[in-house]
Amino acid sequence: MACREYDYAGLLAETVARHRHYAAQGEVASYIPELRKTDPTLAGCALITPQALYEAGDTRYPFTLQSISKVFSLLVALEQRGVETVFAKVGSEPTGDSFNSIVKLETSEQKPLNPMINAGAIAVCSLIPGDSVEERLGLVLKLLEKILDRPVGIDEHVYHSEQETGHRNRALAHFLKDIDCLEGDVDEVLDLYFRQCSILVDCTDLARLGMFLAQKGVTAQGEQLISPHLIRLVTTFMVTCGMYNASGEFAIQVGIPAKSGVSGGILAAVPGRFGVAAFGPALDKKGNSVVGVRMLRHLSQALDLSIF
Amino acid sequence: MACREYDYAGLLAETVARHRHYAAQGEVASYIPELRKTDPTLAGCALITPQALYEAGDTRYPFTLQSISKVFSLLVALEQRGVETVFAKVGSEPTGDSFNSIVKLETSEQKPLNPMINAGAIAVCSLIPGDSVEERLGLVLKLLEKILDRPVGIDEHVYHSEQETGHRNRALAHFLKDIDCLEGDVDEVLDLYFRQCSILVDCTDLARLGMFLAQKGVTAQGEQLISPHLIRLVTTFMVTCGMYNASGEFAIQVGIPAKSGVSGGILAAVPGRFGVAAFGPALDKKGNSVVGVRMLRHLSQALDLSIF
Amino acid sequence: MACREYDYAGLLAETVARHRHYAAQGEVASYIPELRKTDPTLAGCALITPQALYEAGDTRYPFTLQSISKVFSLLVALEQRGVETVFAKVGSEPTGDSFNSIVKLETSEQKPLNPMINAGAIAVCSLIPGDSVEERLGLVLKLLEKILDRPVGIDEHVYHSEQETGHRNRALAHFLKDIDCLEGDVDEVLDLYFRQCSILVDCTDLARLGMFLAQKGVTAQGEQLISPHLIRLVTTFMVTCGMYNASGEFAIQVGIPAKSGVSGGILAAVPGRFGVAAFGPALDKKGNSVVGVRMLRHLSQALDLSIF
Amino acid sequence: MACREYDYAGLLAETVARHRHYAAQGEVASYIPELRKTDPTLAGCALITPQALYEAGDTRYPFTLQSISKVFSLLVALEQRGVETVFAKVGSEPTGDSFNSIVKLETSEQKPLNPMINAGAIAVCSLIPGDSVEERLGLVLKLLEKILDRPVGIDEHVYHSEQETGHRNRALAHFLKDIDCLEGDVDEVLDLYFRQCSILVDCTDLARLGMFLAQKGVTAQGEQLISPHLIRLVTTFMVTCGMYNASGEFAIQVGIPAKSGVSGGILAAVPGRFGVAAFGPALDKKGNSVVGVRMLRHLSQALDLSIF
Repeated sequence: MACREYDYAGLLAETVARHRHYAAQGEVASYIPELRKTDPTLAGCALITPQALYEAGDTRYPFTLQSISKVFSLLVALEQRGVETVFAKVGSEPTGDSFNSIVKLETSEQKPLNPMINAGAIAVCSLIPGDSVEERLGLVLKLLEKILDRPVGIDEHVYHSEQETGHRNRALAHFLKDIDCLEGDVDEVLDLYFRQCSILVDCTDLARLGMFLAQKGVTAQGEQLISPHLIRLVTTFMVTCGMYNASGEFAIQVGIPAKSGVSGGILAAVPGRFGVAAFGPALDKKGNSVVGVRMLRHLSQALDLSIF
Repeated sequence: MACREYDYAGLLAETVARHRHYAAQGEVASYIPELRKTDPTLAGCALITPQALYEAGDTRYPFTLQSISKVFSLLVALEQRGVETVFAKVGSEPTGDSFNSIVKLETSEQKPLNPMINAGAIAVCSLIPGDSVEERLGLVLKLLEKILDRPVGIDEHVYHSEQETGHRNRALAHFLKDIDCLEGDVDEVLDLYFRQCSILVDCTDLARLGMFLAQKGVTAQGEQLISPHLIRLVTTFMVTCGMYNASGEFAIQVGIPAKSGVSGGILAAVPGRFGVAAFGPALDKKGNSVVGVRMLRHLSQALDLSIF
Repeated sequence: MACREYDYAGLLAETVARHRHYAAQGEVASYIPELRKTDPTLAGCALITPQALYEAGDTRYPFTLQSISKVFSLLVALEQRGVETVFAKVGSEPTGDSFNSIVKLETSEQKPLNPMINAGAIAVCSLIPGDSVEERLGLVLKLLEKILDRPVGIDEHVYHSEQETGHRNRALAHFLKDIDCLEGDVDEVLDLYFRQCSILVDCTDLARLGMFLAQKGVTAQGEQLISPHLIRLVTTFMVTCGMYNASGEFAIQVGIPAKSGVSGGILAAVPGRFGVAAFGPALDKKGNSVVGVRMLRHLSQALDLSIF
Repeated sequence: MACREYDYAGLLAETVARHRHYAAQGEVASYIPELRKTDPTLAGCALITPQALYEAGDTRYPFTLQSISKVFSLLVALEQRGVETVFAKVGSEPTGDSFNSIVKLETSEQKPLNPMINAGAIAVCSLIPGDSVEERLGLVLKLLEKILDRPVGIDEHVYHSEQETGHRNRALAHFLKDIDCLEGDVDEVLDLYFRQCSILVDCTDLARLGMFLAQKGVTAQGEQLISPHLIRLVTTFMVTCGMYNASGEFAIQVGIPAKSGVSGGILAAVPGRFGVAAFGPALDKKGNSVVGVRMLRHLSQALDLSIF
């Protein structure tokens, strides 16, 4: 396929222009006070081919990774601790419950259902090795910095906001400790979790991260950072559980491995072809970017991206 | 009824002798490491009439109040903050779930079902006023000291053991904070809760506390400490939810307002007549003293104590 | 107490007059089409002492027993099949779930929590012996006829209405069959259940039925129909689970063993003293008569009827 | 790829030989008495390319479709009634609950989570049009007959066995009626559901049905029976929910759209390439063929079939 000749730039510009107005149907996340301040009408999307980066709209506006970070802390935990150790503490099944639900921890198998819900991601965090929170977070940051080829930092305001208000996540972490699915000190693990959620990126970064997954763990510089086996595993979770409890509908309508965060970003990876990303802070009831989902659906149809 | 003439002492001695062996059917609480050390074959019961105290077996062995403290912290919260404020944060319905369940907090009315389950008791604790944990705990201790007419202390080993291992209670407390059913600082409220659970009593103390309830809030010295209205309210909760999720069966088989704790004590109040208490550290699957329940059933039948 | 001299008639008249207007805060049951037709402003209450019947308001308006029938089918099943057989199929714990909930059947002990919720009552129905629905229903009707000293019939319209629309009850019954808590043929048991729910009474009948329970199973004619042991058992259930998932609040505010039905009746028994009944078809959200609960609370306070 | 030259026959023979012994780790379905009679050590697999059919082991042993039928009744309902009508009655989200769970119907969105769990499949069945069960079933049979190019029948013993013992499915159906997710008569819909579950196939048939999906709705004779859009939709459900609550693990380990049934069959479709099928009646705890899952994992790795 002669990719150069397709007008990706025009497609992205049209995509943003046609969908930005959907922001009115959603609401900016309010559970972290700091997030409430974002302008809901921001919208952007980006696409990376092996040849070039294309972007349109608010693609350089910084936001925090939030749940998108779950993908990369899982990669770190899998690489550092091994598949078996990780899946001793977290399951691999999708769930119809919402991302912060605690019910299943009590009524089902006594381990969080998968690493893409908060409970599972906190359990995974606890497995990242290191002598301090800084050292453990360093492993996640180093992975991102190698992929993005730039230093990566944290939004201190969002981090402190999460620290102060993350009562539900604290409840999940203590519950995990009780059922022996959280290694080490609860407060330290939560500190690590809140920090990784506060990592700053923009929409083009998400597209680069998506491209890294699409290229089976090889960076733009050609370095194989993570083994293809682990990338496939994580990509599969993105399909079955990446969009909270709207993952099933997203799989049907868009059909690309993706992970969303409550700050409004969505990272998507078209295996072997593209990294794609969308940004729009107004969320639907399930926590996904209203504009982002619509833009990705549009791109999937226009470029026939569904893996199904 | 000419109470003096009945051979209560003989009845109690026979009751302990006949039921002590049931301890083999239960297990000493293990969720707090400190409690595991108790000798499971201890057994005692005590009964107080307005005239005298009767006792048999291990009635002077000290143990911690555990869940029995919920009755008295509720009385303090109701007296200090009023009925309306308390029931804004906790419901009044029994539940078929176990005492440390978190499910209902998420799936039902977003407030703990009643003040006798852990979640409800922690919410109630948070309403006890004071500038420090010591001051707040002081209100509970003062009530107990006035009833028992002696200084009351805490088992520091049990307290620290609960502090270190109470992950499920921490989970409940943070969940309560998230749904706005816990006032103030989570860690301080938990500290207060763990301390009140660690208050030291013996079986005769429990009988005295039961007598206080049976006498509608009047101490042995004749002082009306708590209004009869609040005593009735708390006594009702003891009937519908005092024996964890075996309260229904206990109501049928014993029929006395009672509250049990995982250290093996059961406090019971026969309105207008007796305070009764039983002690035996081996618990059944629902967390009630195996020997204690059987001894109370025996006493209820022998003395026709059921309120139904 | 010289009961003859108290002005019960005046108290009842005042009670109805003062509370009838609360009907505006509730709604007539709509889940059975036939019930929707009832005038929501009807209100009546009745009280029976060993000496006389007192009544005020719409005490002669006929309505169907609905859930109140659960008390009497339970008595029949207990008497015919024995305590052990009955409690092999149904538990004895109250529940915070609503009366028609199916969740607990799946997540907890695989038997309905108690005989006062629909699932438990259907299981109990299946234990009533007989070669046909008519014969089995006959046992329930005979008990009622002996207590009321008059022939008792069924509202055919309500019965057929329940038959046609009782999908939730059918779901419960088939679930019970699956977990081996329903004896015999599902459709026949449901037929029996729908018929017993459709038994016609009025408010004075309910007071008479309450008096029978208050007199420990002795009829007005002096016949001991049911053993006191079974009456106590059933009365205890009325306290812990008789008012659906508002039983805890009712115990606190009224404190009398009672059973409500969605047609708006409430039967209450003050042990050793009175039979009391209230009627008012407008229901609160939990399925209890809005006016009925308020009238009973008023009477309980005026006559100090609480057993707590 | 020159498909002719690969030794598929040898690969399949080796696959069956190496995995047949895993049957000892599972159990033949017992919930339908008729299924219990099957020999647990049967094992077979089949693969169809556009050029040829390859098979090894017990590929001609007849068994009933069971849950695999859900794929085809969904295709019929979607084609006959349209996407919108179908998804008004059933959701599209995966679930961590087991296939016959009723909990979510009550606690979540009041519609079955997806068409691959029993509740959802029964709701879908109710949407298949026709004046009689025969006519409605005829639509499903006709689709299968056109794909398989042979007459298709029903196992009458299994059908009657399901009719007599399917209490849980009856419970689900009546619950669906209550929440308005089941069109028409409950018993007729259940009759249709039980019949479609009893459709007789063998392992080579499953491979042919898989090929039909892999070819986007085109038969071996070249006829486009179902639009590619609907095939994609159904295929996506197979990935997220096709293997009961082991779908997430299957996606990770095998990565092929698949649907299993409790008779031991698994149908799989590798988009654009193959139809694959496995058979082995011994099931794991989640209801999937123990041998079947292992054989498909082996084939997926050997032929690199994962879509992720």
